[in-house]
Amino acid sequence: MSTAGKVIKCKAAVAWEPNKPVVIEEIEVAPPQANEVRIKIVATGVCHTDLYHLFEGMHKDGFPAVLGHEGAGIVESVGPGVTEFQPGDKVIPLFISQCRECRFCKNPKTNQCENGWAADSHDVMALAESRFTCKGRKVLQFMGTSTFSEYTVMNQMAVAKIDPAAPLDKVCLLGCGVCTGYGAAVNTAKVEPGSTCAVFGLGAVGLAAVMGCKAAGAKRIIAVDINPDKFEKAKVFGATEFVNPKDHNKPINEVLAEMTNGGVDYSLECVGNVAVMRSALESCIKGWGVSVLVGWTDLHDFAARPIQLIAGRTWKGSLFGGFKSKDGVSKMVKDYLDKKLKVDEFISHNMTLDQANDAIELMKNCKCIRAVMSVSPP
Amino acid sequence: MSTAGKVIKCKAAVAWEPNKPVVIEEIEVAPPQANEVRIKIVATGVCHTDLYHLFEGMHKDGFPAVLGHEGAGIVESVGPGVTEFQPGDKVIPLFISQCRECRFCKNPKTNQCENGWAADSHDVMALAESRFTCKGRKVLQFMGTSTFSEYTVMNQMAVAKIDPAAPLDKVCLLGCGVCTGYGAAVNTAKVEPGSTCAVFGLGAVGLAAVMGCKAAGAKRIIAVDINPDKFEKAKVFGATEFVNPKDHNKPINEVLAEMTNGGVDYSLECVGNVAVMRSALESCIKGWGVSVLVGWTDLHDFAARPIQLIAGRTWKGSLFGGFKSKDGVSKMVKDYLDKKLKVDEFISHNMTLDQANDAIELMKNCKCIRAVMSVSPP
Repeated sequence: MSTAGKVIKCKAAVAWEPNKPVVIEEIEVAPPQANEVRIKIVATGVCHTDLYHLFEGMHKDGFPAVLGHEGAGIVESVGPGVTEFQPGDKVIPLFISQCRECRFCKNPKTNQCENGWAADSHDVMALAESRFTCKGRKVLQFMGTSTFSEYTVMNQMAVAKIDPAAPLDKVCLLGCGVCTGYGAAVNTAKVEPGSTCAVFGLGAVGLAAVMGCKAAGAKRIIAVDINPDKFEKAKVFGATEFVNPKDHNKPINEVLAEMTNGGVDYSLECVGNVAVMRSALESCIKGWGVSVLVGWTDLHDFAARPIQLIAGRTWKGSLFGGFKSKDGVSKMVKDYLDKKLKVDEFISHNMTLDQANDAIELMKNCKCIRAVMSVSPP
Repeated sequence: MSTAGKVIKCKAAVAWEPNKPVVIEEIEVAPPQANEVRIKIVATGVCHTDLYHLFEGMHKDGFPAVLGHEGAGIVESVGPGVTEFQPGDKVIPLFISQCRECRFCKNPKTNQCENGWAADSHDVMALAESRFTCKGRKVLQFMGTSTFSEYTVMNQMAVAKIDPAAPLDKVCLLGCGVCTGYGAAVNTAKVEPGSTCAVFGLGAVGLAAVMGCKAAGAKRIIAVDINPDKFEKAKVFGATEFVNPKDHNKPINEVLAEMTNGGVDYSLECVGNVAVMRSALESCIKGWGVSVLVGWTDLHDFAARPIQLIAGRTWKGSLFGGFKSKDGVSKMVKDYLDKKLKVDEFISHNMTLDQANDAIELMKNCKCIRAVMSVSPP
């Protein structure tokens, strides 16, 4: 029996307040309105940004919310005016929209669409509106996506249609981490063939950045992490050298400068720590070094001495790897199916939505690369 | 009678110690050694960097020194191995060398030659060696140049030969300020036609940046300064709008964002103040805004929130406007002679070397755009 046009009652992991476990609840998901798509979420990754919302610096008005922004699913129904999608399409929800109409979408230099949730998020990382309710309360859609739910509703400008052959329990990682790191190297840093790169932080985003550096033809890819257990994994994605800052009694930028005759051509900060951001910049060679902020934090300023830039370094940042979201995700799924891109190798744990708190703990304690939770059966 | 091969006794303004007036002294200038050129300085500008050395944060080991790095002169004699120059050539001393041999000179992305004074300056902004003595003491050559002297000696890799038709009392300004600002817009920011720019600080460097923005085809050039007396001058160089932060009771980045529907495409910080550096970055539009540090300070960190970069802004820096020094200066002199470039308009005061302290005071108190001192008769 079709659920189209009806409220769906389903299971979701609801974050009722900061710094508390999420609770598996039955929520109500309203039908899609004009230009909206209701999606059955099949699988979702757990990303540090979910934790960031839950545990660090998030405004209390951002609750209750359903977290999750790295999912994949199947269109259940569509609202009026939707022509791009139909029920049964495999899709990935996007936390950056691509409306194709705004001045940002029309500018090839950026992926910062002006029409997504961020435009009216009021510091709560969600649209003011939501199609979710639970126990009579409105529940916010975190980053517009909320993939820790069996169903979610998205504006069609924030949904990527993907190849029907794509395994959703793998390609869900293209909804955030893999594209973010890979694109930061390829699109934002624009790593050149033969260059030397350093990637700081070897979580999923950092490993994807390593993979991006390799795809771009980097000759040396120096993986930097204080946890040497990550080095084996980094090698799988293309890292050629490994540096543990704890093995050295001088600043890591000096270590890298010695290894590389003055510094690396490109550095990517995939931690979200302002001290590491500074190190990453200072690890670049003067003249042409490019450092990219990929890791997220908004708790502190990043800083450096002016001479670091005046000597010819460039400091950039990357959101979702600089990919125009719809175009980028569809293409990355295709590249994965064509075996040009590793995705399976990021998955260290397969879990279910019921285990959401366990998955969050794993991520919080850096005990996983990526945990993928199955949400609804496909 | 030729002075070649002999020690020249001549007049120079010697800075004996920090925070004290310079003293006009008779100094001895040794003959040029291998690959060196001795130059009779005809005219020199006074630049904020000279003041920076004298009054702010400079290591006491940087004294005594002869300041000045924005000069023009005539080759008096050359040392062994010099083939590019001969006595009588008009030249501009360069504080950045262009050896044409190092990996930086060979890389089109940068002007940071590895072989100048900066390579062994040990924080004193001078080579360890010097051809100057005074009263039995070695006197350092500030930035390798020391144009506050009737004669100086430079390595040939730090000298630009210029068109014999060039008036030295004008083109001396191409030795620093004019190239620095103009090139920051054209070479570093790479301002695009039709774009909107903001220039913070309307000293000579900022005015040159305005001129660079105009030359690059910017549609709107917003000149920002707390001294509205500068606005008339800025108009001469191409500014289209003027903002005095003191006229507003909200942050200047918000003022500019309102004026420009979200921010400027390019901003150039020409003050050397870390708070202004932050404002300049925050004044850029997300997605593609580029902010360039041009003003010099090394007393504090510059800083911002990570989101500023992650949202798609780029932070760069520019030294000598990104010009490969020999090539750039020769070309800029030619452009001036071809009337493609304004230089005369920067000169607010004509003085003599004997008035060095007056010229320094004018600059210190922001009472001039550029004071040019005649040094030796041509």
